[in-house]
Amino acid sequence: MDPEEFRREAHRVADWIADYLSNPGQYPVLSRVSPGDITRALPPDAPAHGESFDRILSDFQQVILPGITHWNHPGFFAYFAITGSAPGILAEFLSAALNVQAMLWRTSPAATELEEVTLAWLRRLVHLPDAFEGVIYDTASISTLHALAAARERAAPDVRVHGLGARRFRVYCSDQTHSSIDKAVILLGLGHESLRKIPTDAQFSMRPDALVSAIADDRADGWSPLAVVATVGTTSSTSVDPVEEIAAISAREDIWLHVDAAYAGVAAMVPGYEHVLRGAGAADSIVLNPHKWLFTPFDLSVLYTRHFDVLRAAFSLTPEYLKTAETGVARNLMDTGVQLGRRFRALKLWMVCRHFGADGLRARLAEHMRLARLFADWVDQSSGFERMAPVPFSVVCFRAIPPDLLGNETALDAFNEELIDKVNRSGEVFLSHTRLDGRYVIRLAVGNLHTTEVHVARAWALLNSAS
Amino acid sequence: MDPEEFRREAHRVADWIADYLSNPGQYPVLSRVSPGDITRALPPDAPAHGESFDRILSDFQQVILPGITHWNHPGFFAYFAITGSAPGILAEFLSAALNVQAMLWRTSPAATELEEVTLAWLRRLVHLPDAFEGVIYDTASISTLHALAAARERAAPDVRVHGLGARRFRVYCSDQTHSSIDKAVILLGLGHESLRKIPTDAQFSMRPDALVSAIADDRADGWSPLAVVATVGTTSSTSVDPVEEIAAISAREDIWLHVDAAYAGVAAMVPGYEHVLRGAGAADSIVLNPHKWLFTPFDLSVLYTRHFDVLRAAFSLTPEYLKTAETGVARNLMDTGVQLGRRFRALKLWMVCRHFGADGLRARLAEHMRLARLFADWVDQSSGFERMAPVPFSVVCFRAIPPDLLGNETALDAFNEELIDKVNRSGEVFLSHTRLDGRYVIRLAVGNLHTTEVHVARAWALLNSAS
Repeated sequence: MDPEEFRREAHRVADWIADYLSNPGQYPVLSRVSPGDITRALPPDAPAHGESFDRILSDFQQVILPGITHWNHPGFFAYFAITGSAPGILAEFLSAALNVQAMLWRTSPAATELEEVTLAWLRRLVHLPDAFEGVIYDTASISTLHALAAARERAAPDVRVHGLGARRFRVYCSDQTHSSIDKAVILLGLGHESLRKIPTDAQFSMRPDALVSAIADDRADGWSPLAVVATVGTTSSTSVDPVEEIAAISAREDIWLHVDAAYAGVAAMVPGYEHVLRGAGAADSIVLNPHKWLFTPFDLSVLYTRHFDVLRAAFSLTPEYLKTAETGVARNLMDTGVQLGRRFRALKLWMVCRHFGADGLRARLAEHMRLARLFADWVDQSSGFERMAPVPFSVVCFRAIPPDLLGNETALDAFNEELIDKVNRSGEVFLSHTRLDGRYVIRLAVGNLHTTEVHVARAWALLNSAS
Repeated sequence: MDPEEFRREAHRVADWIADYLSNPGQYPVLSRVSPGDITRALPPDAPAHGESFDRILSDFQQVILPGITHWNHPGFFAYFAITGSAPGILAEFLSAALNVQAMLWRTSPAATELEEVTLAWLRRLVHLPDAFEGVIYDTASISTLHALAAARERAAPDVRVHGLGARRFRVYCSDQTHSSIDKAVILLGLGHESLRKIPTDAQFSMRPDALVSAIADDRADGWSPLAVVATVGTTSSTSVDPVEEIAAISAREDIWLHVDAAYAGVAAMVPGYEHVLRGAGAADSIVLNPHKWLFTPFDLSVLYTRHFDVLRAAFSLTPEYLKTAETGVARNLMDTGVQLGRRFRALKLWMVCRHFGADGLRARLAEHMRLARLFADWVDQSSGFERMAPVPFSVVCFRAIPPDLLGNETALDAFNEELIDKVNRSGEVFLSHTRLDGRYVIRLAVGNLHTTEVHVARAWALLNSAS
């Protein structure tokens, strides 16, 4: 594609995206295709000869788009609703064009330094101490994996060379913690049974007393406590573990404390919500995901740690062909991760922060929390529904309670499962579920910049008319 | 940013990128900033209030751009030269705008199914058997990590629950293998000493006889051989391990064979180069990186394996909030990886394949190999330079040999190190180095679509005039 053809097609794509973003609500939010539909519409082999971009873009619209679930739709309330905001999208366009590797300082000094600068911005926005240095990974799964690998490195530096051997490490998290912790301990070779899930209280928060006795039991049984993962905003109910108390326990027991604030940590920048990260300043590491609730296109996860040297000790390994004059002078970000190749992700976080400004980011987070509280109020005031968990952030957990099914948990589960399917089929909203205390629970997650009170009210109306 | 402002800014960015790509050679290829320059040009805090995109884009040009090393520059010959081609860039723009998660089938069916379809296209282009199923990860480091985790799962399924315990696994690779294998065994808890590096021959290819005796020694010493990593196109010299012989050894010994063809595997689609992946059809897993040498913007790495069930057994773990009606019916790609969140990466590979067509891809790969051979011929015919390794693909390893330094290896190393710095300071080319047999060696890697014979000749002229 010559530069002028690129220019023409880039303008065409820009217009398509501008049209798309001007009304993502025109599509059904949850894709309506059936398994295999997209595959059947595509040929089994790459074309023998190149095709016009016109034809490719037309197939994108005809074949691919019906198979898209629209995360931009204002009625997207599933999982954690997210927004790839306009400045973030433009930054990704620029980043794809530059196509630089942020593995070494010299492979693009701006990529390394902008990462340091923007992560300092974010750290100060959420009031974390300067002792935390940050690095960008793709996902919270990978950030947490690195945190636990660093914990392992600190506890037993010889594991790097000699392997785990007969050691029996224990990692603690609550029974509400994200599955990425399970995957991390499996991958690290610790085994799934090394993960001990601590019971939670009525608010789905880790019980510090249960943590204390689990650690004591484990020590008596010959386990070595390695790390505790405390969560600020669990994936299921957005519950918050008592980080301050857990931090005190971790310090006393000399255990690495990792705080998973991937979703909710950013709320700490909202006036009145500083308490969200209370205690996290004493943690050894903390993960925040700007791609979740800071309007940054996926993927961009941030790991902050007070022990950057340990992270480097765990992962640094420089083959000859990557040695440069700056080794030891400037930071080479490949030294702090298992991934050698690194996209220029800082650019989008930088553009998002500048476009919205601190006050703009705060206002939007506050508005999402207001919408969630509003919906929670409707639930609380309705006799047909009940709330199933506190609403500390922007997610509401609730279920329908038709009078004739009261007391019959199996029937209530089935009713709510059918209810969610019914409203999702409308194409106007997409809700997902979880289970709390064994009960099937509907989640409404606000996180999209296109979502307004109108859309939340529409979800409520659909739920009421379908139940 | 309202839709019309987005439209306006998107057109502006499109124009900037079109201008940039029309002449990336206008910039010095290797950034000339010093460590700290970019940081000092940026404020320590995020702006309190939002700023105009005009101002952000202007800072991008004034502050960020000087800190960019231009991987698009036709004189970029360092590491592995890459190209984020025009259709790939436009696909990333679309993907950033859609901002979908490819974690579950329902979170965008097209993302899951297009991944299956395009990976089948690629598999057939390089003549791999249909028994290989593919999945996209971000980097080869992560693809290989998953391959070795799957090998561990097959060899000892109880590791998932109980951890490694006192097992002593051994992984084999050549002394030329990429550092990602080292990082993988460390992360998996096997320990660095579990990795046994097999000596190579004069062509830097793994010696099968040495592999056989290493395995025998290890078995006698109580190690359990777990996996062999054979490389097609090593990072240092692009040497090729004898995959067919290694596959026979792996089969006999019942060891997982992983083929790292991240860079060079795509060459197998070029007529006359089918042999490149000879033997790889018998492997258990193989990694190819379209972001390296298939004109796809970073990141997109593909892992193919005959044992998708093992990969799933190693990583599948579905919390309640991710259970859907399609679980068990359609493929949920989160089940085959440590990363839950997944970008819609297949879109760019699909657009690249369609834009170039099979013949277009083949022609460009062949041309890059022609340019490398041409440069190698110049080296071979010159008395001032010598070639240091065979040139099976698009990378030439060589060094200057001024007559007065002949026989003095230390002086030759210093001379070549200075030579590379001198030509890199020109701003016209960027070369990197490696060491082979202990000697400092210059690498010229062709892989950029903007690179023509003119640029290769210019690199040769600069090297000659500086030496």
